[in-house]
Amino acid sequence: MLDCIIIGAGPAGMAAAIYMARQKLDFIVVSKTVGGQTLLSWEVGNYLGFQMLPGDELVKEFKKHMADYKIKIQEGEEVKSVNKTKTGFKVKTDKAEYEARTLLVSTGSKHRKLGIPGEDEFYGKGVTYCAACDAPLFGDKDVAVVGGGNSAMESALFASKYSKNIYILNINPELTGDDDLIARVKKDEKIEIIPNAKTTEITGDKFVTGLKYKQDDEVKGLAIQGVFIEIGLIPVSEFIDIVKKDKWNQIIVDKDNATDVEGIWAAGDVSDVTEKQIAVAVGEGAKASLKIIKYIDKLQ
Amino acid sequence: MLDCIIIGAGPAGMAAAIYMARQKLDFIVVSKTVGGQTLLSWEVGNYLGFQMLPGDELVKEFKKHMADYKIKIQEGEEVKSVNKTKTGFKVKTDKAEYEARTLLVSTGSKHRKLGIPGEDEFYGKGVTYCAACDAPLFGDKDVAVVGGGNSAMESALFASKYSKNIYILNINPELTGDDDLIARVKKDEKIEIIPNAKTTEITGDKFVTGLKYKQDDEVKGLAIQGVFIEIGLIPVSEFIDIVKKDKWNQIIVDKDNATDVEGIWAAGDVSDVTEKQIAVAVGEGAKASLKIIKYIDKLQ
Repeated sequence: MLDCIIIGAGPAGMAAAIYMARQKLDFIVVSKTVGGQTLLSWEVGNYLGFQMLPGDELVKEFKKHMADYKIKIQEGEEVKSVNKTKTGFKVKTDKAEYEARTLLVSTGSKHRKLGIPGEDEFYGKGVTYCAACDAPLFGDKDVAVVGGGNSAMESALFASKYSKNIYILNINPELTGDDDLIARVKKDEKIEIIPNAKTTEITGDKFVTGLKYKQDDEVKGLAIQGVFIEIGLIPVSEFIDIVKKDKWNQIIVDKDNATDVEGIWAAGDVSDVTEKQIAVAVGEGAKASLKIIKYIDKLQ
Repeated sequence: MLDCIIIGAGPAGMAAAIYMARQKLDFIVVSKTVGGQTLLSWEVGNYLGFQMLPGDELVKEFKKHMADYKIKIQEGEEVKSVNKTKTGFKVKTDKAEYEARTLLVSTGSKHRKLGIPGEDEFYGKGVTYCAACDAPLFGDKDVAVVGGGNSAMESALFASKYSKNIYILNINPELTGDDDLIARVKKDEKIEIIPNAKTTEITGDKFVTGLKYKQDDEVKGLAIQGVFIEIGLIPVSEFIDIVKKDKWNQIIVDKDNATDVEGIWAAGDVSDVTEKQIAVAVGEGAKASLKIIKYIDKLQ
């Protein structure tokens, strides 16, 4: 039986893996992707010690660090269920089954969907959830960004480097987020902010050609070729139902990142820590791993 | 009146400063030193993204990052008292007086003293609290390390690169800490571990020439030229008495790093977070800063 299974290899899971490897714990890391949301960050400037760099570059540095400790991530493997056993936990993935004394859940979050007609149909055909990845594909086109927070603003600014006209469709009357971003968005002549706009449908033929939205009870339309959906993140926690979650399905943790189930810790965006940040995830992952190491030490 | 005063510029304070600068908060950072305990770390291998490097090198990277945001630290300035005012807090230092709506206390910790004869007298004359800084000064000499945890073991291993014979005087029967370190210390032929040893006096003339310790009620002596004292850290929290502290004088914080006083947050080693780590301090500093930013936003 393993000492620990780290589920998810974003910043929280990777930070924990470093600590566990240094302590020679018998552990594995199972994850669909390596890097989590950091991979999708157009630029990261707030992780102490790294001057502004693209998210995927930062992930490369994380990977280099893990290589020093010979940490192997079982990439592309997805956890399907978690069950309690007499002495620990059984984890079923789409490829295998494992048992461990402890678990660290650090699966992060994924993009929230609008749930409107056309969204799934045109996914990859004009609809995207990652401006940082896809904006360059919309050179000289008109695009819409759906959302009103930091991610929406960042996406609009990024799109502004490539696209002709950018519309921000904000369901609220005002943008909410960093003052700096709001100021930059408002100053950008290519960006038009449409407030109180509820996006209702994405239309098109082979590719997106437009969208519909409701404003003051009136249905309006925009001719656009791309839609960036940036309306928030949802925690990846559906595979585990033995721990307590809040109403947003975030796993509830205490100050030491312990869940309500002995032997299971959670860290990073999947937990109910209020700040979803690389620095915070790294800190919480480190904290949780040290708790796990001490827990395993005591068992022996 | 300032939005915030960050007191202390270790990893927690620096991480917070980066966030506040990005949000254009009106803040200052007051600190005796820049880098905190990280400066004294001989090697850091567990801060995600940085492959093994000396602590002072890591601090240089932190400083470079801060320079990008033009963050100026008021180095060499020590906070003497903190008082509540009607709208915020008054902070007196040895040089000036400031007022701010919020405070972030991130003063970290300092080395615990033995409190025995000779300790103060021979400080800087053979007695040191920083093996990483001073070990090279003891080339080909015999030295003692007082302590039995990770810091003591790291110091002994570091001293082993320079000194002839290294004695670890451990008040407990066994070393406690990382398995890896314990194994390395035990394997090192230059290091002798003396268990159940209570150090009672440091002796010398102009410089240290020996120490005395008690083992099984017998007073024994060692001829050594250097003493590294590594018996733990104490939080730097004596300047503030309006927040609740635990019995170790650590400032008690909740999951969001808030203290019991509205408007004051604490992060890093000075708080009662159980894991004293760079990664954890960075995460807690980032978390606290975002809470402060939101608090200031609401006031406006």
